[in-house]
Amino acid sequence: MSYKRIFDTHAWKLTTNTLHKEDLRLQESMTSIGNGYMGMRGNFEETYSGDHHQGTYISGVWYPDKTKVGWWKNGYPEYFGKVINAMNFIGIRVLINGHEIDTYQDSVTDFYQELDMKEGILRRSFTVNEQVRIETERFLSASFLELCLIKYNVTNLTDENIKVTLIPYLDGNTKNEDANYEETFWVEADRKIGEPYISLSAMTKENAFDIERFTINATMGIVTEHALSMTTEEAGLYAAAHYEYEIPSGASAEIQKFVVVTTSRDMEKEELIPTAERLMADAMNKGYNLLQEEHIEEWARRWEKADITIEGDVEAQQGIRFNIFQLFSTYYGHDERLNIGPKGFTGEKYGGATYWDTEAYAVPMYLALADKRVTENLLRYRFNQLEGAKHNARQQGLKGALYPMVTFTGVECHNEWEITFEEIHRNGAIAYAIYNYTNYTGDKTYLQHEGIEVLTEISRFWADRVHFSKRHNKYMIHGVTGPNEYENNVNNNWYTNTMATWVLKYTMECLADIDEQRKEQLNISAEELAHWQDIVDRMYFPYDEELGVHVQHDTFLDKDLRPVSSLDKADLPLNQKWSWDKILRSPFIKQADVLQGIYFFSDEFTMEEKKRNFDFYEPMTVHESSLSPSIHAVLAAELKMEEKAVEMYKRTARLDLDNYNNDTEDGLHITSMTGSWLAIVQGFAGMRTHGETLRFSPFLPKDWSSYSFHINYRERLINVNVDQNEVKITLVSGAPLTMELYDKEVLITDEEPLITKTTS
Amino acid sequence: MSYKRIFDTHAWKLTTNTLHKEDLRLQESMTSIGNGYMGMRGNFEETYSGDHHQGTYISGVWYPDKTKVGWWKNGYPEYFGKVINAMNFIGIRVLINGHEIDTYQDSVTDFYQELDMKEGILRRSFTVNEQVRIETERFLSASFLELCLIKYNVTNLTDENIKVTLIPYLDGNTKNEDANYEETFWVEADRKIGEPYISLSAMTKENAFDIERFTINATMGIVTEHALSMTTEEAGLYAAAHYEYEIPSGASAEIQKFVVVTTSRDMEKEELIPTAERLMADAMNKGYNLLQEEHIEEWARRWEKADITIEGDVEAQQGIRFNIFQLFSTYYGHDERLNIGPKGFTGEKYGGATYWDTEAYAVPMYLALADKRVTENLLRYRFNQLEGAKHNARQQGLKGALYPMVTFTGVECHNEWEITFEEIHRNGAIAYAIYNYTNYTGDKTYLQHEGIEVLTEISRFWADRVHFSKRHNKYMIHGVTGPNEYENNVNNNWYTNTMATWVLKYTMECLADIDEQRKEQLNISAEELAHWQDIVDRMYFPYDEELGVHVQHDTFLDKDLRPVSSLDKADLPLNQKWSWDKILRSPFIKQADVLQGIYFFSDEFTMEEKKRNFDFYEPMTVHESSLSPSIHAVLAAELKMEEKAVEMYKRTARLDLDNYNNDTEDGLHITSMTGSWLAIVQGFAGMRTHGETLRFSPFLPKDWSSYSFHINYRERLINVNVDQNEVKITLVSGAPLTMELYDKEVLITDEEPLITKTTS
Repeated sequence: MSYKRIFDTHAWKLTTNTLHKEDLRLQESMTSIGNGYMGMRGNFEETYSGDHHQGTYISGVWYPDKTKVGWWKNGYPEYFGKVINAMNFIGIRVLINGHEIDTYQDSVTDFYQELDMKEGILRRSFTVNEQVRIETERFLSASFLELCLIKYNVTNLTDENIKVTLIPYLDGNTKNEDANYEETFWVEADRKIGEPYISLSAMTKENAFDIERFTINATMGIVTEHALSMTTEEAGLYAAAHYEYEIPSGASAEIQKFVVVTTSRDMEKEELIPTAERLMADAMNKGYNLLQEEHIEEWARRWEKADITIEGDVEAQQGIRFNIFQLFSTYYGHDERLNIGPKGFTGEKYGGATYWDTEAYAVPMYLALADKRVTENLLRYRFNQLEGAKHNARQQGLKGALYPMVTFTGVECHNEWEITFEEIHRNGAIAYAIYNYTNYTGDKTYLQHEGIEVLTEISRFWADRVHFSKRHNKYMIHGVTGPNEYENNVNNNWYTNTMATWVLKYTMECLADIDEQRKEQLNISAEELAHWQDIVDRMYFPYDEELGVHVQHDTFLDKDLRPVSSLDKADLPLNQKWSWDKILRSPFIKQADVLQGIYFFSDEFTMEEKKRNFDFYEPMTVHESSLSPSIHAVLAAELKMEEKAVEMYKRTARLDLDNYNNDTEDGLHITSMTGSWLAIVQGFAGMRTHGETLRFSPFLPKDWSSYSFHINYRERLINVNVDQNEVKITLVSGAPLTMELYDKEVLITDEEPLITKTTS
Repeated sequence: MSYKRIFDTHAWKLTTNTLHKEDLRLQESMTSIGNGYMGMRGNFEETYSGDHHQGTYISGVWYPDKTKVGWWKNGYPEYFGKVINAMNFIGIRVLINGHEIDTYQDSVTDFYQELDMKEGILRRSFTVNEQVRIETERFLSASFLELCLIKYNVTNLTDENIKVTLIPYLDGNTKNEDANYEETFWVEADRKIGEPYISLSAMTKENAFDIERFTINATMGIVTEHALSMTTEEAGLYAAAHYEYEIPSGASAEIQKFVVVTTSRDMEKEELIPTAERLMADAMNKGYNLLQEEHIEEWARRWEKADITIEGDVEAQQGIRFNIFQLFSTYYGHDERLNIGPKGFTGEKYGGATYWDTEAYAVPMYLALADKRVTENLLRYRFNQLEGAKHNARQQGLKGALYPMVTFTGVECHNEWEITFEEIHRNGAIAYAIYNYTNYTGDKTYLQHEGIEVLTEISRFWADRVHFSKRHNKYMIHGVTGPNEYENNVNNNWYTNTMATWVLKYTMECLADIDEQRKEQLNISAEELAHWQDIVDRMYFPYDEELGVHVQHDTFLDKDLRPVSSLDKADLPLNQKWSWDKILRSPFIKQADVLQGIYFFSDEFTMEEKKRNFDFYEPMTVHESSLSPSIHAVLAAELKMEEKAVEMYKRTARLDLDNYNNDTEDGLHITSMTGSWLAIVQGFAGMRTHGETLRFSPFLPKDWSSYSFHINYRERLINVNVDQNEVKITLVSGAPLTMELYDKEVLITDEEPLITKTTS
């Protein structure tokens, strides 16, 4: 585990006095902002010629980049879909007496940067060449999604007049860093240069896969005073305005750059500029300050419901807020056509597409922190892509539906065979989310209409994917990759076999409640159900009697088993130091695998079983997946291993803030950010919801004074506050509820908080 | 197994009366010619606008094409090396009365094409638009390696005079079909347009990997009569001469196109054109007819030593000759810097680089058919690349040397982790070839000087690559891919464990004979040897008591085991019909795996063991590697399964002639072509050489009248002739030899042939 912290600790902010030229990519990742509709890395407005990664992303705007690998295998997807780096619309070139400021080359002093998470605003100030002081702030409005606002101010520090030129621009000449052929994805679409606004539209280039071409438009409006002249400039995918100022000593030049972004996802291409102009007129009419107030109010509303306060540990406090801030910046449920990309708007890795992370890690948090319709939208996203999932199964010669590892449309668009073809446990997570939603909300409507069809098709996949081993008289699943991707193409991965069997059982249970007409539509026969039952009855699960543990997969115990602590530190992280074969045959585990299954089906295992498995697997786990520590934190908390739980919490809470995986320069680990919430709420507070019962069993980490959070549960808002002495559960709104606290049944009402002694 | 035969059967030729426009790529592959120095597919001289694959290759001239896969893994090679498609120097455009002939668009009748394998000459004749008859022949001289000769004749079939324009040209604007980015690899180097010759030089473009840039030059000289005019044309990587003729009814225009190819592999760049001009002057001086005679004589000398005659089965006869012809066209031991690419000069698949095919499949044949120096050169090629092999081991964090899967330099240049990192059994084949050479020739010089160093470093790799399983108290090898590439990342592949153990044993045996000084140079300690011995003593080999078979790898027997005969024909070939995961978890075997080990160490297994393993594995084998049938033919022959042996022989002998794998359009399976020789000599004739003893145990396939071949063995030339009644072994030259025939010791002398009754 490496460590690099470049921002100071602060309860509500990321702040630094350093321009980290050696780590600018990291600094940019950390200061990313977004509003669900669009987002961007913390790039500078002015020119910076050093190594950095300019990245702006518009949600749902993607391109199918042809995949080409040396050795094609039958059934491989034809393209890798990626959210593409869109127009840079924040840029402002700055010239002082004709010299263009370059914050990489020029002298930069008294640098200060802050990301204000409470307000959702990114600010910077710094002095260039001891000549000018620059102050800038930027936000993507949380209340006016198409809008980006920037204030940019240049103050003359010299004793003489200076000539300042400010050149706000729009630049569509952007590239994806991960493009397969270093190609660009954008072509010119439209341009309108004039008073009062400048508009530039770009269209994704043609593709060979019948995927929709997207057009995006950015319209820029400038508010400024005292400019001597304004001229415009345009060429290809570039448009700019030049403002000239003569600035006396101590005075400033300032512009407010308003940008409205419209896309063909929401309207006809021809409407993009007119719509943007109308929206721009509205925005200009309100003005910068009022728009900023509305933006801050919207963030305040979000924090009111979602904030977790931690007293006594400012690092932990900063960590959880950073994660919630970045998650909400990525997805706040506005648009049912969208999902949550693993890097959000903060980088290009993983293509910005949909992964099983959403169902396994994000759904529990959104269920608790947002209206159930947000999660229902996430489920509906999968239902709408069922045809794509059936296509994927057919590509593998199998029945039913295989949800993809990576997708925008339901069709798989990733091409490592060991992942695409074999990491099929993901199909279980899709089903699990249906269970989770239904169990948490108590609302069976989705299950009985759409969900049952998804479950049935997933079950059909599993029933066709198993094989029968005559030698063992058991069903087996060979050739899979489990959640621990540091094993590939293994046989009888316990987690996968467990998920497959559970899906079949759960589907049969649900079908018992479904009316006959729907069952007929689904074409389910008694033979089919009998076959499913036979698989459930005779599934093979690797288990070791001697150790009393579920075995990760066949032959795992033949390895040279040893703990991570036996490794030289120089070998970590393994994925950057060891060749792939060495990682694969080592015993080291990337993320919870057996333990992920125990986490999902917590009620089905005794504490002794949990402990044996945790004690066996955790010491071999390198947690090199950002999805790993949270699950371990939850289990460790349940096992009363409080120190381990806190260690794991810190790792998930500050994964990016402290760059533990040494890869945050590529972007933030967005979908893993729910992990710190899971660690606190399911871990420290011990929330469980299996069996349609809400349960808590809280403890207080020893360095903390208290923590407090809200959850939404079945039309109720509940606050949980834990300090050294007592646990206080307050029903903020909604009907009284019978629940469990420390394994005892309790009733909470809106009359007074339920208070009990904190146990450790 | 599919089947497509487009050439007629004939003992010495490939002939057809059809222009296979739908299968031109296949027709081109089949009519490839080469002379070890260079080679080309059977492309037409005149323009052909239909789908085809223009391909010309110069041995040892390659380019490191950057590899890029979506998901990079630590240690992956940076480039895929490939022999690149070089200048098209055979081209001749033909215009009749100003209309350019295009044999795809124009009417082509009375088509005839033949590849004369005895003479090594490719000929075609055909009528175009009922207007002209074209006759052409081409060869790459076997006695003057830099030289390509073409005769092209156009006869006027009409009653009137016609205007004929012949435009012989050189064209360096060629591309590799498998280029990663559809890029070209050539840049202009030099050009000399004049009388009497036209020269064009091209250079491989820059690369980022410090790999040598190659320059090739083609110099063209034309012999013709009655041309009205000659003009020249040049542009970039193109140069041509235009000859105009006025041809009366029944008369012809004819050119002889001489091309001399020189490369920077053999001389300074500046010398390429002057040298080519000198060589051209020599060639012109001799003239077309004498050069052709010399070429035919050289082929006659080769056939004299290598021909296998088969009486009673013209298909089999054609098959074995086609294979020997194409092998010798690819490699005849001229140049110790070269090796044998899997596609030779007939296509681009596999990059034209060196694979373990050479050691496992080609060495036995070259040992028997050529001077031992040819094989020694192949071994020396690996010794010279030992540093590259050490580099590969270090890339995987291991000691010693890992010979690459694909290479030009010793450094691995292929990037599938399951192959590059895990198909490490190849390292055993490199060692086995040293044993094979030493055992066959009886000459220990190479072993004691260079070979022992190679063996030691390979042993060090194995000793570091095993791990110790405490649970089993055994050494194991996890995470490998065996010869059967339809399994990836398996544990304890029996073949790999067997090879690794054998290498350690053999190296220790050889070291016992090595002088102390050399041992000191190799830095071998007693501890190291003790560790090797411990591995040998405690290696784990999967074995099934019940079935009495060596198990291909752990968990293989848990599969849904079933024979290939249970498959629907529409599922074959699996690699074109099934997704990769389905292939991997199926029981179907691509090529000999356990059986490959039994083949290599034939003397260590009883006939009963061989039979049990053959009967168990062969029915599950799809033989979708072209390297598969030959090994099965040899084993089936030994097991007296004559029908199976003949079936397998036919599949290897006519793999390309009948396009069994449905991929011959990509090029011929050059390194597999030794298979038909192995099948006859080691299979039908039962030749064995283990333990420094020459043994035969021949049978005659029932449809054959007889077969006959020569082998070279320890400074002797021996002829073996088998017919229904008798086996006749003739010592053509060399000292008397004690050998074994049908398990009996016999003495052969040059006085009279040894004759014995044929047993079946």
